[in-house]
Amino acid sequence: MRFATEALSQIQPDEVDTMVRWIIEAKEKRLLIIGVGRSGLVGRSFAMRMMHLGFNVYVMGETITPAIGKGDLIVAISGSGTTKLVVTASEIAKEVGARIIAVTSHPDSDLGKLADHIVLVKGRTKIAAETDYFLRQITGAHEPLAPLGTIFEVSALIFFDSIIVELMRKLGKTEKDMLSRHATIE
Amino acid sequence: MRFATEALSQIQPDEVDTMVRWIIEAKEKRLLIIGVGRSGLVGRSFAMRMMHLGFNVYVMGETITPAIGKGDLIVAISGSGTTKLVVTASEIAKEVGARIIAVTSHPDSDLGKLADHIVLVKGRTKIAAETDYFLRQITGAHEPLAPLGTIFEVSALIFFDSIIVELMRKLGKTEKDMLSRHATIE
Amino acid sequence: MRFATEALSQIQPDEVDTMVRWIIEAKEKRLLIIGVGRSGLVGRSFAMRMMHLGFNVYVMGETITPAIGKGDLIVAISGSGTTKLVVTASEIAKEVGARIIAVTSHPDSDLGKLADHIVLVKGRTKIAAETDYFLRQITGAHEPLAPLGTIFEVSALIFFDSIIVELMRKLGKTEKDMLSRHATIE
Amino acid sequence: MRFATEALSQIQPDEVDTMVRWIIEAKEKRLLIIGVGRSGLVGRSFAMRMMHLGFNVYVMGETITPAIGKGDLIVAISGSGTTKLVVTASEIAKEVGARIIAVTSHPDSDLGKLADHIVLVKGRTKIAAETDYFLRQITGAHEPLAPLGTIFEVSALIFFDSIIVELMRKLGKTEKDMLSRHATIE
Repeated sequence: MRFATEALSQIQPDEVDTMVRWIIEAKEKRLLIIGVGRSGLVGRSFAMRMMHLGFNVYVMGETITPAIGKGDLIVAISGSGTTKLVVTASEIAKEVGARIIAVTSHPDSDLGKLADHIVLVKGRTKIAAETDYFLRQITGAHEPLAPLGTIFEVSALIFFDSIIVELMRKLGKTEKDMLSRHATIE
Repeated sequence: MRFATEALSQIQPDEVDTMVRWIIEAKEKRLLIIGVGRSGLVGRSFAMRMMHLGFNVYVMGETITPAIGKGDLIVAISGSGTTKLVVTASEIAKEVGARIIAVTSHPDSDLGKLADHIVLVKGRTKIAAETDYFLRQITGAHEPLAPLGTIFEVSALIFFDSIIVELMRKLGKTEKDMLSRHATIE
Repeated sequence: MRFATEALSQIQPDEVDTMVRWIIEAKEKRLLIIGVGRSGLVGRSFAMRMMHLGFNVYVMGETITPAIGKGDLIVAISGSGTTKLVVTASEIAKEVGARIIAVTSHPDSDLGKLADHIVLVKGRTKIAAETDYFLRQITGAHEPLAPLGTIFEVSALIFFDSIIVELMRKLGKTEKDMLSRHATIE
Repeated sequence: MRFATEALSQIQPDEVDTMVRWIIEAKEKRLLIIGVGRSGLVGRSFAMRMMHLGFNVYVMGETITPAIGKGDLIVAISGSGTTKLVVTASEIAKEVGARIIAVTSHPDSDLGKLADHIVLVKGRTKIAAETDYFLRQITGAHEPLAPLGTIFEVSALIFFDSIIVELMRKLGKTEKDMLSRHATIE
C-alpha cells in the first residue's frame, strides 16, 4: 500500500483540475478510454463509473464503441507511454480532432508527446523494493514486491476513483443517481 | 453453406416481422443483447450494426452496459435455449420488466418458455451430415461437418444481418448513415 | 446468402492448403488471432473452435494472452487490410519473429504486404447490390444490401469454419473430442 | 486510501494461507476466475498476473475459456456475494466438481454458502464516510466518498496483488520470469 500512497501523493493537483474540467466540458460529447493490459482494465473500471455518472463513455475494443471525432475526449492510459496499440490509437484520435489526456508515468514518451494534457502518475520507484508493512502482514512475505506495472496500475485505479468522487461533487451527483444507472442484469 | 440455407429458409416471416416491429418500437428505449460462446459473438456482431443504425444497444458483460428496466428490449441468443447464464440473465430481465425475444432452435426450452417472442432458427438437422459441395470444394474434405453449434451460429449471423437490412429499409437509413457511426479509432 | 457463396467460391484451394499446413506445423506453438470490429468477432469464433481442437490459441486484447515470439503463428483478419490497430499489431508480430497469415480482401494492402501468407476472401463486389432471393424472402426487402463489411465478415466466418472441419479431418479429431474441451461454465 | 488500508488490515492471514495453498495445489489444473462488473475487472487483473506466473488460468466470458471439471479451482469475486451470474456460474462449477474460493464481504451470502473456502474482504463500513486525507488532498473534495462497491474493489485488487507476491515467493518466480510471459503484441 505504501507504494501507492507514495505515488498518489505526488500527483499534481493542477493536472487533476484540468482533467476534471476537460471531462466536464465534454459532458455532451463522447469520451473514449484507451488502454491495454492491466492499464486497460483500470480504464474500464473508470469507464463503468463514468457511465454511472451519465457520461457518453466508451472503451476502445468493445462492441458498441462508435465514431470519435472533433471535440470528443480521449483518456489514454499507459505507464510507460510506449504501448504501441495505445500510441497508434492516440495518433488516430489526434487525426480525427479529439483531445487527448494521457495518464502515464512518462510525460516524455510517445504517448506523452501526443497528449494535449498529461496527468503524471508515478510507477515504480525505489520505494517499491522496500519493506511494506501491510503486504508483509497479510502475506508473510519478507521482501514484498510490486512486480511489473503494479504500482502504476493500483495508483491509477485509486486516482481515477478520486476523479469520480470529484465529478460527483462538481456535478451534484449522488450515489443514488449512480445506482440508478448501474447494470441490473448481472 | 447448404446447411445454413436450409436453416434460414425455415425461418417464419411472421416471427421476423414481430421482431422487427418490437425493435422499432424500442427505438428510444434500451436494447440488450444476451448470449455466451459463439452465439454471444454473433450477438455482438448484431449489436455493432444496431449501434451503426443509431439504437441504444448494449451487450451483457461489457463495461458500459447500464441498467435495463421496464419497456427495454432483450434479444437472448442460445441454440439449445438451455445455456444457464443466458437463462439466468433472461429471468432477471423478466423481473425488471423488459420484453424478451429469444433466438433459439428450441422454443420449448427454458429460454423459450421465458421469452415474450421467439424466432426459431434451426440448428443441426440431418442435412448437416450430408456432403456439402462448397466445403468439399474449398477444403477437400470428403465428409464435411458443421461441428457443435456451427449451423445455428452461422444461420443466426446471417439472420441478424438480414434484420439489419430490413431495419435500414424501414427506418430509411443508408449505408452512409451507418458509416458515420462506425468506430474511427481501430 | 448468394453473395457469400460467390465470395467463398473464389477462395483459392492452394491458399487454404498452405494455411492449414502452417496451422498444423504450429500445433505445439502459440497461435494468436488479431482482428477488430466484426472481423475481430469472426476471429474469436475461430479461436473458440481452435481451442476445442486443442490448439494453444489466443486472441489479441483478451486477458490471458501471453508473449508471442519466434515460430508462433498469427492469423490477422481485416477485409480492407488497412485497419491500423491490426496493421500495427502485425508489425510487432513480424518484429518478434512470428509468421503471419492475413485473411483479407486486399492482398496489396499494408496488412497484405506484411503477411507471410495471404488467403484472399473477397468482400463486396457488384453482386452485393443485386436482388438476393433469400434475404428478400425472409425480410420482404426489395433491395437487399449487405452493408459495410458484411460480405467479407460472413464469408470469413464460413471460411474459418471450413478450416476447422479440415483440421478435424487432418488431425483425426471428432466432435466428441471438441465437446470435451467446450466451456462447461456458461 | 485509508478505507482500503482499513479493509485490508482485517483480512485474516489464515484465510489467505489456505487460498495460496489451494492455488499452488492446482498448479497443474485449471483455474477459472468468475466475476462481473468492476469485481470482474479486478479478477482479470489477477488472471493476467497468474498467467505471467505460468498458471493455466482462464476468465469466465472470454473466448478461449475451456471446460472446467473435477479438481479445477474457481476464484469467484463478488462483494455482496449475491450477484446472480456469479452465483449461477459457481453453482455450475460445484456441479462439475471444481473447488470454489469466494472473495466476498458477505460470507453468509449465496456465494459464501456455495464456496469451499472464503476470503473475507470487507467493503463499505462507516469509515467510508469519514474524511480521507489523501482524496481531499488530490481532489480538493471536502466530503470524499467511495461510491458503490469501490472499497471492496480497490481492496480486492490490492489483496490479489499481494497473493501474486506471495506466489512469486513460494514458487521462486522472479519478475523476469513473469516478464517473459507478458504479452508482446499490444
